[in-house]
Amino acid sequence: MDQKALFNISYGVFVLGAKTEEKVNACITNTFVQVASDPLRVTIACLNRNYTCDMIKKSGTFSISVLDQSCTFDTIKHFGFQSGRDVNKFDTVAYDTDAYGNPYVKKEACSLFSCKVLSSQDLGTHTLFIAEIEDARVVSDKPPLTYSDYQTKVKPKREAAATDKKIVGWRCKICGYEYKEPVLPPDYVCPLCGHPASDFEPIYAD
Amino acid sequence: MDQKALFNISYGVFVLGAKTEEKVNACITNTFVQVASDPLRVTIACLNRNYTCDMIKKSGTFSISVLDQSCTFDTIKHFGFQSGRDVNKFDTVAYDTDAYGNPYVKKEACSLFSCKVLSSQDLGTHTLFIAEIEDARVVSDKPPLTYSDYQTKVKPKREAAATDKKIVGWRCKICGYEYKEPVLPPDYVCPLCGHPASDFEPIYAD
Repeated sequence: MDQKALFNISYGVFVLGAKTEEKVNACITNTFVQVASDPLRVTIACLNRNYTCDMIKKSGTFSISVLDQSCTFDTIKHFGFQSGRDVNKFDTVAYDTDAYGNPYVKKEACSLFSCKVLSSQDLGTHTLFIAEIEDARVVSDKPPLTYSDYQTKVKPKREAAATDKKIVGWRCKICGYEYKEPVLPPDYVCPLCGHPASDFEPIYAD
Repeated sequence: MDQKALFNISYGVFVLGAKTEEKVNACITNTFVQVASDPLRVTIACLNRNYTCDMIKKSGTFSISVLDQSCTFDTIKHFGFQSGRDVNKFDTVAYDTDAYGNPYVKKEACSLFSCKVLSSQDLGTHTLFIAEIEDARVVSDKPPLTYSDYQTKVKPKREAAATDKKIVGWRCKICGYEYKEPVLPPDYVCPLCGHPASDFEPIYAD
């Protein structure tokens, strides 16, 4: 099986919003799709270790902001490269909310959805949520950002590893998984979140 | 709710292959996504009225050919605008098969997947299949076709309606649903398969 075949599956890029009684939070997902038309049904797959996933499981609702082509890497980093367990992501970002209190971003999005979970299934690394749409809005006329656009135009090229330090391993910037060998195979795929070698950063010897 | 918001969700375009003891068949889908990485899991949503859907329910397996940017409208029409109940689509198209006998197209595809269904859920118009990947291959280095590419570059512009005949309704070219009014609202969405007004053709009075 050649896992590189997976890189040819196309996706959008979305801010997946959730809330508790005390706070709002969001992460980045690429797995939002419509799966039925009558009744209207959508699915998302959320990484189980994400705080956002815990919040959705408890509240039974979530929001989706469909990122558009004006999306910056800062937005992806802000929502995708840090955890709501460590930081309140919306302390520094203005947001609107759906009727349930789930956050929408106010810029760089072209469509917004408010969703209510109907069922969920634990798939190991991820939980698959099947949901109905409670509200849907178009908020900009910019084309949506695709996951391929993110890889080729938004994500910066990988920084060269420091040459004066010894590399002892590689850490996945998306989920934190650590590959404990000094040489990362170029076709490596993160066993936890499925991201490719280009999303790993060096771990240096102390 | 503004259903036009749904048009900002990004997808690929895929030939979904299936088989019975006697024949092979395929249809076009845009709903193939990876939803977990360990174990590797994918989902597709297949229209319940499609013959392909019946076949997958019986065999428990299916194939996916990820269409690439060399894909032509003829391919989309051949697999997407006619039913395997009426015609043997692979009588005129060369194909390979996966280990189960599900067909792959031999051209215009960049990745191929052979999948085994683990569970399914009836969502009304569609069945959602969760599957594991048994085989995956990269077969071309062309970029994948997105659903947006199909709408903007592959699908021909809508033909002007004949002016010498009376229009009594509109028929969805994708699923056959008939809208029984002479004027189709430009923002109409097919209640059966979710396709927009641009996928409807006029029904003329006899």
